[in-house]
Formats: sequence, structure tokens, C-alpha cells
Amino acid sequence: MPITRADLEALDRQDPLAPMRALFDLPAGVVYLDGNSLGPLPRATPGRIAEVTEREWGRGLIRSWNDAGWIDLPARIGDKIARLIGAAPGTVMVADSTSVNLFKLIAVALGERPDRRVILSEKRNFPTDLYIAEGLATLLSQGHRLRLVEAEDIPGAIGDDVALVMLTHVNFATGAMHDMAAVSAAAHDSGALVLWDLAHSAGAVPVDLAGAGADFAVGCGYKFLNGGPGAPAFLHVAPAHLDRARFPITGWLGHAAPFAFEPGYRPAAGIARATAGTPPILSLAALEVGIDIALRAPMDQVRAKSLLQGRLFADLVAQECGEATFRLVSPRDDERRGSQVCLAHAEAYPIMQALIARGVIGDFRAPDILRFGLTPLYLGYADLWDAATALAEVMRREEWRQAGFRTRRAVT
Amino acid sequence: MPITRADLEALDRQDPLAPMRALFDLPAGVVYLDGNSLGPLPRATPGRIAEVTEREWGRGLIRSWNDAGWIDLPARIGDKIARLIGAAPGTVMVADSTSVNLFKLIAVALGERPDRRVILSEKRNFPTDLYIAEGLATLLSQGHRLRLVEAEDIPGAIGDDVALVMLTHVNFATGAMHDMAAVSAAAHDSGALVLWDLAHSAGAVPVDLAGAGADFAVGCGYKFLNGGPGAPAFLHVAPAHLDRARFPITGWLGHAAPFAFEPGYRPAAGIARATAGTPPILSLAALEVGIDIALRAPMDQVRAKSLLQGRLFADLVAQECGEATFRLVSPRDDERRGSQVCLAHAEAYPIMQALIARGVIGDFRAPDILRFGLTPLYLGYADLWDAATALAEVMRREEWRQAGFRTRRAVT
Repeated sequence: MPITRADLEALDRQDPLAPMRALFDLPAGVVYLDGNSLGPLPRATPGRIAEVTEREWGRGLIRSWNDAGWIDLPARIGDKIARLIGAAPGTVMVADSTSVNLFKLIAVALGERPDRRVILSEKRNFPTDLYIAEGLATLLSQGHRLRLVEAEDIPGAIGDDVALVMLTHVNFATGAMHDMAAVSAAAHDSGALVLWDLAHSAGAVPVDLAGAGADFAVGCGYKFLNGGPGAPAFLHVAPAHLDRARFPITGWLGHAAPFAFEPGYRPAAGIARATAGTPPILSLAALEVGIDIALRAPMDQVRAKSLLQGRLFADLVAQECGEATFRLVSPRDDERRGSQVCLAHAEAYPIMQALIARGVIGDFRAPDILRFGLTPLYLGYADLWDAATALAEVMRREEWRQAGFRTRRAVT
Repeated sequence: MPITRADLEALDRQDPLAPMRALFDLPAGVVYLDGNSLGPLPRATPGRIAEVTEREWGRGLIRSWNDAGWIDLPARIGDKIARLIGAAPGTVMVADSTSVNLFKLIAVALGERPDRRVILSEKRNFPTDLYIAEGLATLLSQGHRLRLVEAEDIPGAIGDDVALVMLTHVNFATGAMHDMAAVSAAAHDSGALVLWDLAHSAGAVPVDLAGAGADFAVGCGYKFLNGGPGAPAFLHVAPAHLDRARFPITGWLGHAAPFAFEPGYRPAAGIARATAGTPPILSLAALEVGIDIALRAPMDQVRAKSLLQGRLFADLVAQECGEATFRLVSPRDDERRGSQVCLAHAEAYPIMQALIARGVIGDFRAPDILRFGLTPLYLGYADLWDAATALAEVMRREEWRQAGFRTRRAVT
């Protein structure tokens, strides 16, 4: 029996997360399915930024580093993120970008496995993860190399030459999700360490870093955490590694006594050593608002809604566009899917442009993927109907054939 | 003949930069002599941040990466900074923190001098510069070492084992300024490269990187550039090095085609390869407001006022506090002084705390320095009178002996 809009409206009426949508300032006439690329603006963010800018910076000036607690902000927000990803307090720090944090943690990991030279990852991992590992290996000139295999071949590829298994928990282009506990255990069985990129996991799917025995993790503040464009990233170091971790970028704020201005570097105790330079306070303030919202949403509710939305959206697209129009790239199995639905089509780029012109915003991922992020905090079930029927219209009217929709833009 | 407040008021009336003070939102009752640690809030900043937050992020969502030009922001602001520091367009990029940028450029420089193992710097350089070099040398494990000498001994210490001369142009603790052209020439004569940290120079003193033949530079957005707390930093690579520079942190936004998601890293042409991860847009927007103000102030006027203010403040302190109370740490010679006046005293910490309690905000630098930043865009001549007489009262009444002023705070 076909799904109707009325069915979806009924789900919206029963949705325990429905009230959270009011916490976000979403533009009228838009169905936003790109919150896994840039989360929308929380309504509380402009006021918080104004307070930090006008009162803390404007009135407090330099005194706000102490009086407004700016100096503690990266660790304070880190502890909040820790609650979202199953990490102990004092093991997560907000710092730099995901790329820079990957660089730092890969270096830490290689330092702990000096006799091994392989970084194992997945062929279709997010490119920056691979580029960063490649760049570090080149820099070190010690024969480190990246070994890339298909996702399903990871466990079998962890030989005794592997120093680090580095994976993105949920794949950016397909939404396929690794079994974090199983892969971490396989890595440890072979004497390797494991680093998880949580860019598409934090705030989106249940994550239990401590339970999985993860050694290291990085993650992103501007996707499911709604921290704003280019929000600072975070990193995690498991307690067992914390006090021996040798970070390669030894900036003053990671020093045991930053304001003693000692000539030599002494790392701070614990996760504080993961810090390098001075953090961007305005962007941090925006990030904290997004994190505070994420902490209000029970993850079991978020996950249940996300999975149901994923099944419904895939079914709706098949129903409205025809079974054969798109190839579903994301796993059908709930256990193996993150919080997105990805569809392949040879004309994915102009199709997505035409869809965006109709106010349904997803994104394109090369070479042929239409990507739709599912964000239960503000995405309604009826929105899925509107998105799938708009996509059907784009296909039926062949709107994507319009010349303008083929013009590639700087950011896709 | 003693200086009077009326003399200083007369200077304020003739000051061509006096109207610029109205561009800043300074709290009443404060004399701010710490703009070299955190510049104050420009009046235009809250509106610009609100626009970026509410319109570009809130309404534009992910589309603003293209439509609002976010993707070009780091290079666009970089080109504006280039005009402040005598660098060619396309050679400056806003990115990361000063610490991370130092790491990147030291690695680039060492890569260009593979047969040399020494990084030469100044004993009293800002610690993060030394820590970062030390951390990179440890990471590389190729025998690189830091050679530290007194400032005046730098030219004589550039042997043929020196890969890189790394100096802060204006010393953070003393205000002493290196002769950038002379030191750069000495480095090149010995086959070494040179990297300048412009943290206390950009927007504060004339800088001509191209004229001096500098190879690399880094700098800070939140001091004299008034970009806000923890504003993103910048880096410069001279044209001769641009297309062969091998950056160690090879993140996706420095890739030749970031959205092609190629498996291997190919550096972007030019300065774009200096980028690693996604930049913090809200903090970048605030930075641009500060830079735009700096570009409106003729540097010859800024420098002339800064130097006169430095001489006057040193003289006023001697006049009001007594010649022997403080030891002037900053050079008396205008050619060798940046835009600050530093005074040494065994009780510098509580004295500065007592002075701040009177609304005169400078800062303390370990072990014994009271530091006063001179910021001609918003600092008046009469402010110097008020600061010096407040300091005299703190000393005369021994206000600094109050117990609370000895309590060290997290940030000094």
C-alpha cells in the first residue's frame, strides 16, 4: 500500500522530538536535508554570540579570558561532547579543524607503535583523512604507508605491520556504518591502535567510544552538532594513552604552564596537551549552543526516528520516482546505516541543483551521488514527502536538463 | 620641563588618527593598554557577525559557501592583510592558529634545506615559536635542533648548518624590534631561509616582507588587527617558494580539487595549499572587520603616533613614579622599538593587578614585566597621562600590597 502524506503527518503528531524543531531558525519554504554538511542556525545562537561579542569582548576585553572563562571553553565544551560519544570526562578537547586533529592523532598513534609502518584505512574514506595520513607519512620519511582496502576487508587486513586502523565511522558518501566495537577489537587483537572519525556520527548515531575500546577519535562541530560554518572540531584520546601521548604540534596553550613562558616545552597533564594555539572564541560560543541542544535529545529517540526516516525516504523515492530511477547506495540494513540516504544517478549533479532550486536542499558527492542527511531534531516526516515528490517532479519534467544546473560551483 | 595633561590634550587635538577611536566600542572608565594582547571590539563587528549568522548561515544555509563567498574568505582576507605587511597578492592566507601555521612553515622551510639541521632563533622569542620548532624536530627524528642565542648575536650565528632563521619581528616581552631586511639578508648570505612572526607587527609597525626578502611569515589576527578573541591567524609564503612548498598538513581544502574527492593528494596552486581544514566562518567575519579598519589608517601616521606615545609614556612614568621605580625594558631607540613600552619591577604582577583595578589595563609577562601596548587607532595622548598617574598612585599608596592582587589567575 502506498505511503501517503497523511501517514507522515500522523507520524509527526506522535513524534516526541517534534518540539525540538522550534529550537532552530529554518527558512520558510525549505526542506533541509543537508544538516550533515552544515547544520542550521539554532535560535539561541545569535543572542549568545551577541553576548560574547558585545559584553564579554566589548566590555570585558582581555579580562574575559579569566572572568568569562574563555580559557576553559575548549575543555568545557569537550566534556559536553564526551557525553554524546561515550567518552569519559577529561578525554575530549575542542581544537582546530578535523584535518589538523587527524594529523595530531595519527602522529601520536604512530609514536606509540614505532615498529609498525602501516596506516590501514578504507578506499572510500573521506579524502582529507587519507590526504592527512599521506602527508604525515611523507613528512616523517620513515617508510610509513597507507594501505587502503574495501570496507568489508578491513578486519582481515590488520596484519602485524599495522600501527593504526583509521576509519570514518559513518561513510560520508554512502552512509555505511562500521561496527566500531568489532573493528576496534580486531585492531587490538593484532596489536594495532584505532582512530575513529566521527564527522557523521556525533549527534547522529549512538557512539560509545569507551565501550568500543577506541583509542582515538576526531569529529566535526558543524554537521549534526549545529555549531555553525567551520565550527571548531574536537578530538578524543582514551585514558590509557592520555599521559603518554606525544602531540606533534606543541603550542603554548598545550604547555603545562603556558603563562610561565618557560624556554622548553612540557606537555600539560591530560587532554590539555592536545591544544596548540589560541582557540577562536566566537566560533566556540556558537558551537556550545549547538552541543547544548544535542544534549537535550535522547539518543535512542534520535536514532529510532533517523532509521525510520531513512527507510521511509528510500521507499518514498522508489514510490514517487519509480524503482529504477535511482540506485540506493546506503545500506538497507539499519545496523549498518548512519543518518543519511544516498542515491546514485549518472546526472546526480544537475538533478541536485534542480532540486535545490525547488527548495529541497541536499548535496552532491562526486561522481554520481545525491546525498540526503536525516536530522531528527528538526526534520519532520512530512518533509520527506515534500522532498520525494519534488524529486519526482524534477525527474518527470526533466528540470535537471536546464543548462544552468550543469554549471559546477566552487563548493558542491 | 615636566609634561602636563594640557600638553597631551593639545596633541590629541592635532592627531589625524583621533577620529578613528569612534570606530571602536571601548568601555567607559578604561584606559586600554592591552590591545597588543586582545584588540577591542570594532563598532561594526556585532552587525557584521549578526549578518553572517542570521542571514548567511540562517537563511542561506549550506548555499552560503558559494553564494556568500565563504569559500573565498580566507584568501580574500589574506589579500587584505598582504597590503598591511608588504606582501604580494596571492601570498597570504588566513588559516588556523599562529602555532599551527608556524608548524606548517617550519616544515616547509626544512623541506627546502634538506642538508641543514639547525633552526636558529632568539632565546627570548615567544615560547610557542620555540616549542613548535622543538616539537617538529622531535617528530622528524632527523637530528634537527634549535639553536638559541641572544637577539644581537643572531647575524653572527647563521652558520652553514642553519636551515632556517625564525624570529619574532617585535619581541612580545620587551618590544625590541629586529631589522628585518638586515637579518633576512644575513640569512640568505649564509644560504638559510627566514621566517618572521609578525604577531606584534601587523597593523602596528611598518612591515615590508617583499622589500626585506622574507621567505615566510606568520601573524596573529587578535592583537593589533582587532579581529576578536582567538581570531584566525595568517601565513605568508614568498612567491619564489609558493609552487614548490610542501605543506605537511595536507587537508582537503588545500587540494587542487577539493570536491573531486580524489583518493590521492595534489596540492592546490599557490597559497591555497596552505589551507588544511574548514575555516571558522564566524570568527573570520569578525577578523575582516578589524582588517578593514587597519587598512584605513596610513601606516606612517600610525607609526609616528606610536613612537611619540612610547617616548611620552616612558617619560611620564619616570616623571610621575620617579626615575628609579621601574626599569625601562623596551629600547629607547625608535628604530629598535615596536609598539609597546615594557617596565620591569620585582612586584610586577600585583602592581599590574592593582592598576587594572583602577581601570588601566595592561598585562604582566613573567617574570617581572609590566607591558603596555600602544595602539594609535584608539589610544589618546591624554590616556597616557591617566595611565601614568594611576600607576603613580598604585605605587605611592602601595595598593599592590593588597592580598588579592597576588593571586595568580589562569591567564596573565
